[in-house]
Amino acid sequence: MRFLHTADWHIGKKLHGFDLAEDQQAAYEQIQAIALAEKVDAMIIAGDLYDRGIPNEKSVNQLDNMLIDLNLKQHLPVLAISGNHDSATRLRTGSPWFKATDYYLNTKLSQAFTPVEFDDTQVFLLPYFEPFEARRYFDDDSIKSAADAMQQIVAAMAAKFDPAKKHVLVAHFFAAGSEHVDSETQVMVGGLNAIPVTDLAPFDYVALGHLHGKDALHAERVRYSGSPLKFSVSEANQQKGVWIVDTDPFAVTFKPLTPIHDVRVLKGAFADLTAPEFYKEQAQDDYLAIRLTDKRVIPNVMQALRDVYPRIIELERTDGPVVSDTPTETVDPHLDPMELLDQFFEKQTETAMTEQQQKWAQAALTAANKED
Amino acid sequence: MRFLHTADWHIGKKLHGFDLAEDQQAAYEQIQAIALAEKVDAMIIAGDLYDRGIPNEKSVNQLDNMLIDLNLKQHLPVLAISGNHDSATRLRTGSPWFKATDYYLNTKLSQAFTPVEFDDTQVFLLPYFEPFEARRYFDDDSIKSAADAMQQIVAAMAAKFDPAKKHVLVAHFFAAGSEHVDSETQVMVGGLNAIPVTDLAPFDYVALGHLHGKDALHAERVRYSGSPLKFSVSEANQQKGVWIVDTDPFAVTFKPLTPIHDVRVLKGAFADLTAPEFYKEQAQDDYLAIRLTDKRVIPNVMQALRDVYPRIIELERTDGPVVSDTPTETVDPHLDPMELLDQFFEKQTETAMTEQQQKWAQAALTAANKED
Repeated sequence: MRFLHTADWHIGKKLHGFDLAEDQQAAYEQIQAIALAEKVDAMIIAGDLYDRGIPNEKSVNQLDNMLIDLNLKQHLPVLAISGNHDSATRLRTGSPWFKATDYYLNTKLSQAFTPVEFDDTQVFLLPYFEPFEARRYFDDDSIKSAADAMQQIVAAMAAKFDPAKKHVLVAHFFAAGSEHVDSETQVMVGGLNAIPVTDLAPFDYVALGHLHGKDALHAERVRYSGSPLKFSVSEANQQKGVWIVDTDPFAVTFKPLTPIHDVRVLKGAFADLTAPEFYKEQAQDDYLAIRLTDKRVIPNVMQALRDVYPRIIELERTDGPVVSDTPTETVDPHLDPMELLDQFFEKQTETAMTEQQQKWAQAALTAANKED
Repeated sequence: MRFLHTADWHIGKKLHGFDLAEDQQAAYEQIQAIALAEKVDAMIIAGDLYDRGIPNEKSVNQLDNMLIDLNLKQHLPVLAISGNHDSATRLRTGSPWFKATDYYLNTKLSQAFTPVEFDDTQVFLLPYFEPFEARRYFDDDSIKSAADAMQQIVAAMAAKFDPAKKHVLVAHFFAAGSEHVDSETQVMVGGLNAIPVTDLAPFDYVALGHLHGKDALHAERVRYSGSPLKFSVSEANQQKGVWIVDTDPFAVTFKPLTPIHDVRVLKGAFADLTAPEFYKEQAQDDYLAIRLTDKRVIPNVMQALRDVYPRIIELERTDGPVVSDTPTETVDPHLDPMELLDQFFEKQTETAMTEQQQKWAQAALTAANKED
């Protein structure tokens, strides 16, 4: 079989306050076009479809439409798992119905041991899991780490192997020996949670998600696809894309994606960066980490730079302190704490506080003020 | 055709702080059993499946399992709409796949004009909508109210009528002339948002959700099913249940539901209510609104009553002030405001604040404190 391997879409992610929805949509459209052009038998999405457990409505709508397009409109089989950024429970709504059109979305460890069968290949979909889930599933208290769990998981999968077929694992974890970058730092990496690549040897290919760089691991048959977009300045030098994988005979090809706004580091003196003869040659709309080489004080430096480069995500002095690493969120200092909390709550949850929640918050604020 | 008409499940609802999940599960099981015993052709759920737009994971899991049971295990067609308590966007995830097994879940006004066809009946599923959505859909600025919108909606549906069949509307709104009670007060009722029952005359039956009492409206062919459970003390005297409706020839039968914990008002003197010879005759586990007839001070009255009746939802003096109408939420006054906010955020959203959110909250609290 031939499949497209992608992961870490992180729908809903913001980059230093900038909404990435358009960028993600453009990346999606390229991925879809590659899948169709390459006539793949399936698209594999190895976890972190959403950026967070409770995505906002816009993000829900966006991901829903992508999957409707892939599976119901293009009739492309989709093989997906939940990642650590997804809420497995929220993501799985509807999934029992999806199988009828060859959309397999696994969110529970117990689902991982029934492979999706293709003519020449079995695909095992292992969602992100915590060691306690494996402890419970195998009823084995000796499982202390993800690596311990993985040994039993691989053995249980191998017991289901059809020797006439190739075997693919789709998973979302940190493989020992991988390199990682800033945008993944929320994640516990290394140590007990790392899975030794050698333990994955029974598989002909392991399609991983979790780390955002396609080169995080150096193993021919165990690969991260990386994210479709750069989600951090530390990824500025990565080439983003997807893998096209043939299982028999084995072959793997990288297909690059072109962002509508790149993430780049721009280094120079303020006067040079703001000179028309320089910036007119630049993709001014890119997400830019600016490194100023000046030592002098520059009044209103951020505003002056933003007039030229609207998507500045970092501003640093190469020879001095950080000026600002993120666009300022504006807070109206004239609001009372309750109103601030109200706004904050609404911003985060997209719903207004109920009367009971307001009472509770008011009680909390009153208690807090007493301590002052 | 024969169908079961229910609505307003409000999965995730709490009753004065008490989790109703078990009660809702028991009600669901009775509804399912009635549907099977009555051999209905479909179950109609007329909106407010969830209690809020962002239900917690436990609630998501609970409703998912109910619908999997009904539609995939029992092979029962399900016809549902979103209500004002549901997030239409969140609820519709997966819905394009559901149709394959005769589970129709409409969440957009535009879907309301394609009826679900049964041998002898057309069922139109109209989700909860706001007047602005109708204004946009019909491209008609003269639509100011839900009633204005409804006239055009009914006309557009009537244009799709198959004269050889009966016509059923499923909707979620306030029908003019209905009575309403406390647990629906978040909802705007009456006035411009009320739909005159006379405008619904083209339909052979209108299966409504929104109001929680089956007797809210006095019309033979326009009915609320009411909620499966009592969600407020003001509903204490209602009989909860579902309608079994035959469209041709028309017939309607009420099937009562029996709660595992009833909602009741219990009135009497403290000494009487706490006397074993009285309370041993009581269903002590019911949700109770206690009305004390005493005038004297009773030390630790709430705790003393709770020792006998663990699910007290209101405590009032018939002859004096309210003592307490809800169990107290405990707030640790030794936490600093940031920790309080942290706890509050986690309690409400089920996720910890990200680093960026914490920064933002800290800035907001600092700004707020400056104003003190």
